[in-house]
Amino acid sequence: MTLLYMPKAELDRIRTLDGDRQERAAAFADACRLNVLYMVQRVGSGHLGTTFSSLDIVSWLHLEVLRGGDRYFSSKGHDAPGLYAVLTALGRLDFELIHQLRRLNGLPGHPDVAATPEVVTSTGSLGMGVSKARGFVLADRLAGRSSRVYVLTGDGELQEGQFWESLGPTAKRGLHEITVIVDRNQVQSDTWVDKVSDIGDLEAKGGAFGWAVASCDGHDLRSLASTLEGLEHEQRPKLVIARTRKGGGVSFMEPESHLPRTDTALYNYHVGALSPEEYERAVEEVCERLNDRLMRLGGDPVELVDAEPPEHISAAVEHRQRLVAAYGDELSKQAAREPRLVALDADLRKDCGLVEFRERFPDRFFECGIAEQDMVSQAGAMALAGFLPAVHSFACFLSTRPNEQIYNNATEGTKVVYAGSLAGLVPGGPGHSHQSVRDISALGAVPGMALIEPFSEFECRAAVDWAVNRSPGPVYIRLVSVAWALGFEPPAVEQLVPGRGTVLRRGRDLLFVAAGPVMVAGAWRATAVLAEYGVEAGVVSMPWLRGVDGSWVAEVADGAPIVTLDNHYVTGGLGDGVLAALAADAPDAAARLRKIGVDEVPKSGENNEVLRAHHLDGDSIAERVRDLADVPMQI
Amino acid sequence: MTLLYMPKAELDRIRTLDGDRQERAAAFADACRLNVLYMVQRVGSGHLGTTFSSLDIVSWLHLEVLRGGDRYFSSKGHDAPGLYAVLTALGRLDFELIHQLRRLNGLPGHPDVAATPEVVTSTGSLGMGVSKARGFVLADRLAGRSSRVYVLTGDGELQEGQFWESLGPTAKRGLHEITVIVDRNQVQSDTWVDKVSDIGDLEAKGGAFGWAVASCDGHDLRSLASTLEGLEHEQRPKLVIARTRKGGGVSFMEPESHLPRTDTALYNYHVGALSPEEYERAVEEVCERLNDRLMRLGGDPVELVDAEPPEHISAAVEHRQRLVAAYGDELSKQAAREPRLVALDADLRKDCGLVEFRERFPDRFFECGIAEQDMVSQAGAMALAGFLPAVHSFACFLSTRPNEQIYNNATEGTKVVYAGSLAGLVPGGPGHSHQSVRDISALGAVPGMALIEPFSEFECRAAVDWAVNRSPGPVYIRLVSVAWALGFEPPAVEQLVPGRGTVLRRGRDLLFVAAGPVMVAGAWRATAVLAEYGVEAGVVSMPWLRGVDGSWVAEVADGAPIVTLDNHYVTGGLGDGVLAALAADAPDAAARLRKIGVDEVPKSGENNEVLRAHHLDGDSIAERVRDLADVPMQI
Repeated sequence: MTLLYMPKAELDRIRTLDGDRQERAAAFADACRLNVLYMVQRVGSGHLGTTFSSLDIVSWLHLEVLRGGDRYFSSKGHDAPGLYAVLTALGRLDFELIHQLRRLNGLPGHPDVAATPEVVTSTGSLGMGVSKARGFVLADRLAGRSSRVYVLTGDGELQEGQFWESLGPTAKRGLHEITVIVDRNQVQSDTWVDKVSDIGDLEAKGGAFGWAVASCDGHDLRSLASTLEGLEHEQRPKLVIARTRKGGGVSFMEPESHLPRTDTALYNYHVGALSPEEYERAVEEVCERLNDRLMRLGGDPVELVDAEPPEHISAAVEHRQRLVAAYGDELSKQAAREPRLVALDADLRKDCGLVEFRERFPDRFFECGIAEQDMVSQAGAMALAGFLPAVHSFACFLSTRPNEQIYNNATEGTKVVYAGSLAGLVPGGPGHSHQSVRDISALGAVPGMALIEPFSEFECRAAVDWAVNRSPGPVYIRLVSVAWALGFEPPAVEQLVPGRGTVLRRGRDLLFVAAGPVMVAGAWRATAVLAEYGVEAGVVSMPWLRGVDGSWVAEVADGAPIVTLDNHYVTGGLGDGVLAALAADAPDAAARLRKIGVDEVPKSGENNEVLRAHHLDGDSIAERVRDLADVPMQI
Repeated sequence: MTLLYMPKAELDRIRTLDGDRQERAAAFADACRLNVLYMVQRVGSGHLGTTFSSLDIVSWLHLEVLRGGDRYFSSKGHDAPGLYAVLTALGRLDFELIHQLRRLNGLPGHPDVAATPEVVTSTGSLGMGVSKARGFVLADRLAGRSSRVYVLTGDGELQEGQFWESLGPTAKRGLHEITVIVDRNQVQSDTWVDKVSDIGDLEAKGGAFGWAVASCDGHDLRSLASTLEGLEHEQRPKLVIARTRKGGGVSFMEPESHLPRTDTALYNYHVGALSPEEYERAVEEVCERLNDRLMRLGGDPVELVDAEPPEHISAAVEHRQRLVAAYGDELSKQAAREPRLVALDADLRKDCGLVEFRERFPDRFFECGIAEQDMVSQAGAMALAGFLPAVHSFACFLSTRPNEQIYNNATEGTKVVYAGSLAGLVPGGPGHSHQSVRDISALGAVPGMALIEPFSEFECRAAVDWAVNRSPGPVYIRLVSVAWALGFEPPAVEQLVPGRGTVLRRGRDLLFVAAGPVMVAGAWRATAVLAEYGVEAGVVSMPWLRGVDGSWVAEVADGAPIVTLDNHYVTGGLGDGVLAALAADAPDAAARLRKIGVDEVPKSGENNEVLRAHHLDGDSIAERVRDLADVPMQI
């Protein structure tokens, strides 16, 4: 597959063409579409659908609306490739960064104020946009500065309570400096917004909350421009509902082309790259339209550059552990036996492995939308009413957004199963809003809650079985979503034994204790490296993140130093759980423990480079323990 | 002061009088008001204002509306004394429990499904009501049961985003079984709702979210009854806005009697007992009205019973540490020097010590209402814009509701100070929704965040100074709100030294490491008990809950066993912070550590009895360490 991008000079040419402002901005947006296609295709991941629905708007704002001191940010955040395409085209970001989307020291999967100049605030955790805008404006007013803030939101994002929480106070303070533009593309992660959790009459709602509301066509810049102008002298904060099409500008990505209005249909282009054929079709369609626009503007057709092929990103070919799929399959199996089992989802049916459950048990599946607090409290009541709810989202969101609601449920003495996928450092592409490395700490002190992280499909199924059939209280199941190769064939696991794990390899000199496939694979690789230096290291998979059987671990270690590996901040993770257990059950072993884990905000990048950057790949792990194992030389 | 209550027989008499249903229910409500006054006055705490605004409604529902299978619960929860008065009057709870409000094994300060029969769900964490109602109804539908759910909410409570998050999905599913009654008493914790964070046109908002909305006078049962009847056949979920008066039914407690419509006025009767004179006036007023009602119903005047005086609850008379006051005073001092310092509050201006700040720096004080997520994201943007925001709420809410928002701010590399008051087991009256014993764990892995808990006013001021002037990153300051006697005069603290604490007493045999006044006082008392057995125990105040200097602690311990004391779940608290530090810096000392802390959901009760029940009073602590200190006999 040949990848093409538009060079800076071409972008400059388009941006400075004389002629109709709207036509020129639309051409600029299409030019950016080409570079978005390039960026996402090059790295193999990224959110095309939401980027394309909003790209005309983002282009117009940057070319024609924003002035010095004004701020623009996207609250939804996953349309970051579009922002990057615009900022690189404008020279506000180094143009060469277009080759580095979702790569280490490149452009993170979601906007990161600490990583990228020109980014206004870090987003990717949904629903925070209006609150942040208010903070900016109040700060500016206090500092005697005058400025405007433009915030782009998704429409699925509006299911988050914080959005509504933030509307009233913003209106009450009369913060007319704020314009919120809703990218009303009608499709969220899984499918049509109105099939997930209808947001209803948005105009009426915005008006009831005291905002000046207007609607426009978000792909028609004349419509957008006149709508923004019409609101200019409004003294209330402004809510612009921009009707768009997800994937807008590439016909086969638009929902009307392939997404039936059924309950089970799933949108195809929320995240991920295109097939080579689709990529070619998309480029062709955009180029054709762009050239038409340029012709109308009196410009020459575009010339694209053949990209250097990206450096090879190695992919293991051996059998990979697919935990989310195993989880979903096992949950359905359990549901067939256990009629009380119901599943709740927050617009991540595909990502949480629930497609089969939804199909087999439609009455027992509750799609809640991006409304985690609502979902969790609802599940709590279902548990009180005699059901066994299993609640799903990404670990980063599930452990934090409804944190108080999970505790409230736990204090009621009922049982709810929480399954958090996308746990840990990888995938590294999406960036730190999605790299869940704080969930164990955030939920670790919920009384009576078991926290389990399986490393293999076998252990995953056993975890579901234990959660459904044996656990007396609530359970948090932490799942790495990336299919991951272990480097060995995992043993079958019949049944989990509370507090104990599986001895995968015995070793005289050192014992690795790890949870989840990424860290177990890292430990396994480290043992191979250490073996070259005559060091025999053992590996234990420890699925219990809390309630570890310290005596058992100490017995397995048999006097050797113990090294815990955390796919989580080293504070509050598995290591602290093992340490606490050892201190209680086998104090001497506690004095021989070393914790290894994440110790800074996760970097965004390709999986292996992210692990390497955090010194959590197998080779780095071996290096980090060589003093314990009496390896004298540098590994 | 003589306390009076209405005995069960009198309540039965009133409840079964023939005559007008509304008049009878109003009489019953007034009878319950008398017992609420008794309950709150007896224990010295409780929420009278919100109980009285809703008590006519709660009485009507229980007498005339609810049928078998129906559920009623209050989402706001702090009106629990009213619910208890009604349920004891109806014989659904043991009548003798009216003598045990907020006492151990009695009636918790907020409804607790695990502690009290007839309670439907545990509330006290705001905004969860509609979500829970939906869970109940969906579960019932799935189980083939038919039932209705009546939910009472506050009006200040509607500032929480979860309320709005839950409205849409409930309407979309057509859950007509749900009736939400808003106790629109216009006053929240601090003051008028519209002065805190106006909720605007609630009718319009409810309608925009697809609910059937109606309004009524919540103290006029004819109005309430006809409104409920009018909605009976509605196929949408129902939102009844009941106009009430906070403290309704006792004239001097009603806001119009004493609360000017200014920005600084504070409502007097949100929480706490009355003065003896006020109590007498209140009883007199309610009795007079009640007797009028009874006369109209053809009944005799009421006869009240003189209560046995409550058992003496000891109160130390020595100097108590008032951390919240010291915090607030120091924050104002710092603000006078540091113009970037701004304060944000979530309707707890009094409770978070911000009255002075608000008065001295009105432009730099931002009242956010009960909207913690909105508050925290807003603060994050203010920090990005160059200010130093200090964010306030109760620890139980601040550490959990905006947990994801706090992390988002932290990843932006800015500095925000979070001050969580009401931390720990005491006051024990409000119950576990308010007893924050999980906040250290919930925030403990936020990267770069310092967590500090001062034990004395000196240390508290030093903590504020450190947070404002020296900390490079975000800081969480954990504050016990109860004025607490230490048992000794605390030393002056000039400046905090990161990771290190203050040696309050040296001891050869054992070292207590504790944070906060309650645990330091407990350690101090335990040393006295142990001294009687010849054991010399030392005490260190360790304000750093994370980032402890393990070498320093080990040096102070000098080979003796170390005992950490946690006013927090033993998992994830100070003890785990100390253990991690020792394991890293002084492994031998790690093997000599014992962690003592909370190990079950906090009990509600009087402060000392709660500490005793959790074995965290000084005497229990001494008992729990006697094996370490070679004390052979039972202490």
